[in-house]
Amino acid sequence: MGGDHGPKVTIPASLDCLKDNPALNLILVGDEAILKPLLSQALGDYLGRLSIRHASECVAMDESPAKALKNKKDSSMRVAINLVRDGQADACVSAGNTGALMATARFVLKMIPGIDRPAIISTLPSIFGHTHVLDLGANVDCTAEHLFQFAVMGNELVKAVDSIENPRVGLLNIGEEDVKGNEQVKAAAKLLESSSLNYIGYVEGDSINAGHIPVDLIVVDGFVGNVALKAIEGAAKMIAGGLKEAFNKNLLAKIAGLVAYPVLKLFKQRIDPRRYNGASFLGLRGLVIKSHGGADRLAFKTAINLAELEIKKDVIQKISQQVEKTLAMSARA
Amino acid sequence: MGGDHGPKVTIPASLDCLKDNPALNLILVGDEAILKPLLSQALGDYLGRLSIRHASECVAMDESPAKALKNKKDSSMRVAINLVRDGQADACVSAGNTGALMATARFVLKMIPGIDRPAIISTLPSIFGHTHVLDLGANVDCTAEHLFQFAVMGNELVKAVDSIENPRVGLLNIGEEDVKGNEQVKAAAKLLESSSLNYIGYVEGDSINAGHIPVDLIVVDGFVGNVALKAIEGAAKMIAGGLKEAFNKNLLAKIAGLVAYPVLKLFKQRIDPRRYNGASFLGLRGLVIKSHGGADRLAFKTAINLAELEIKKDVIQKISQQVEKTLAMSARA
Repeated sequence: MGGDHGPKVTIPASLDCLKDNPALNLILVGDEAILKPLLSQALGDYLGRLSIRHASECVAMDESPAKALKNKKDSSMRVAINLVRDGQADACVSAGNTGALMATARFVLKMIPGIDRPAIISTLPSIFGHTHVLDLGANVDCTAEHLFQFAVMGNELVKAVDSIENPRVGLLNIGEEDVKGNEQVKAAAKLLESSSLNYIGYVEGDSINAGHIPVDLIVVDGFVGNVALKAIEGAAKMIAGGLKEAFNKNLLAKIAGLVAYPVLKLFKQRIDPRRYNGASFLGLRGLVIKSHGGADRLAFKTAINLAELEIKKDVIQKISQQVEKTLAMSARA
Repeated sequence: MGGDHGPKVTIPASLDCLKDNPALNLILVGDEAILKPLLSQALGDYLGRLSIRHASECVAMDESPAKALKNKKDSSMRVAINLVRDGQADACVSAGNTGALMATARFVLKMIPGIDRPAIISTLPSIFGHTHVLDLGANVDCTAEHLFQFAVMGNELVKAVDSIENPRVGLLNIGEEDVKGNEQVKAAAKLLESSSLNYIGYVEGDSINAGHIPVDLIVVDGFVGNVALKAIEGAAKMIAGGLKEAFNKNLLAKIAGLVAYPVLKLFKQRIDPRRYNGASFLGLRGLVIKSHGGADRLAFKTAINLAELEIKKDVIQKISQQVEKTLAMSARA
């Protein structure tokens, strides 16, 4: 039900995924009176793989997370997360209110023992392929221990979804020298240095998309991570808009635009934010994927596919085991 | 002497500025033995407007600011800043080591009474024209009062250089709702709301380049500001590189690139970072402009022109007066 477009986007995206992936089963959670008419044909086509779970309420995009949690016990996101808790679903995907989704997920699923705070991780394109960044906004103030926990969790996710042994882990800072940064970052660096992670040191803001060395996972507190993510979105929007304007300036520019169109289109696909849609909530005892609220059909499809990948790769289980192991090690130390 | 390229860039840029602006006088500070041979012709051409001030030392780009300040009392940046202190120069422009330049400027020029910390401000392109952002990295931890002081100083600079009455001032946060953000940002918002500034509220990271409403000045702590700035640089670099690669992929793409070249070039000029080079140190009792270390001739020229504009607009004097006025008001309150 969530996101800026609701079932108009989530349903076609769901059907696309069912078509592409015969192993996928989807439960659409929301108002049956709205969903059923939109699905009549599909329920037959995907018999046994597609079902509706009725939820009488819906959390508004601008609703306070605390109020949603308290008052809307039959909201679509709450019911969907309950399915994860009860083992009836392996993951919940939502384009709804981020704060409410996080608060509800935390309340219903609970934290992995040893993790203090959940974190939001997503993938961004880079000149080396892509980079995973966390936290993207769940936590406005992080201690060094929180940052270290994020690194441990993110490292397991990257290992699993990218199928690599030792992800290069960087800590976001305002310089690469030891003296740079605030106290939390400096203390987190010490924890990372003495860990078994493949810690490559401080990286700067440009490393997200185009650093001088490749980095697989960038760890940052949620305030800085969120600002960086949105700053990148703004830069990309300005450049895309400027290009469009430039190629519409006059007839000659329009002709040039037509000639260049196939090249520009191919390039755009490569960094298309819809191909990177879907952020995972880490630290919870269950898988919850947040889609961008403004996601269209392709973007929401990407988020569903991400959930499927993380289920297949057993990401939550791997994180839980690693956290337990790390805690056992610190207890011995 | 500073920057990645030294006099090879700074001298041609200086001569360009002297040529363009008959009212400009420049003192080039550095090793006379290096500078003089490069200037023999120009010293005659710009008689009375161009001179060399010898400085026997030079701060390395990776030297510790504390060591540079302590050990290199005859460094080119120290001598240049001394000229500002002594009224022999109206501004100092340097492409050298940022930390050393800041430490030296602070030590030699002292702070404006009432300002606790210096801040770095620069201009970035936006879909509405441009946006000024501070702090870009001088301070890793800021209190609400620091952020407020940055706003007061930045506001005077924007009024002066953009010739506008009431700059729209935004506070960088991870959401636009009141509940968002950390304690410092929330407290700074209260100070800004009760001030005489044209405070428009919280803005998000995308507002730097492409928000949904125009903002003239964005206030942020130096850690977040620096990461955002570099994240934008990284995004722009990735997109520019990707475009170049796309237009070189095969013969057809190359032809398309040739046709599109004039359009792409015009667009590139509009957001060319060299046209935005030059960051001002605010809060000091004298004008110091930091050029990007990697600046080329055009970029360094932009930094010199920025210094000239801020001199003409009397930015430092206006900031000092405004700070005094604001302090007097708080004392009465």
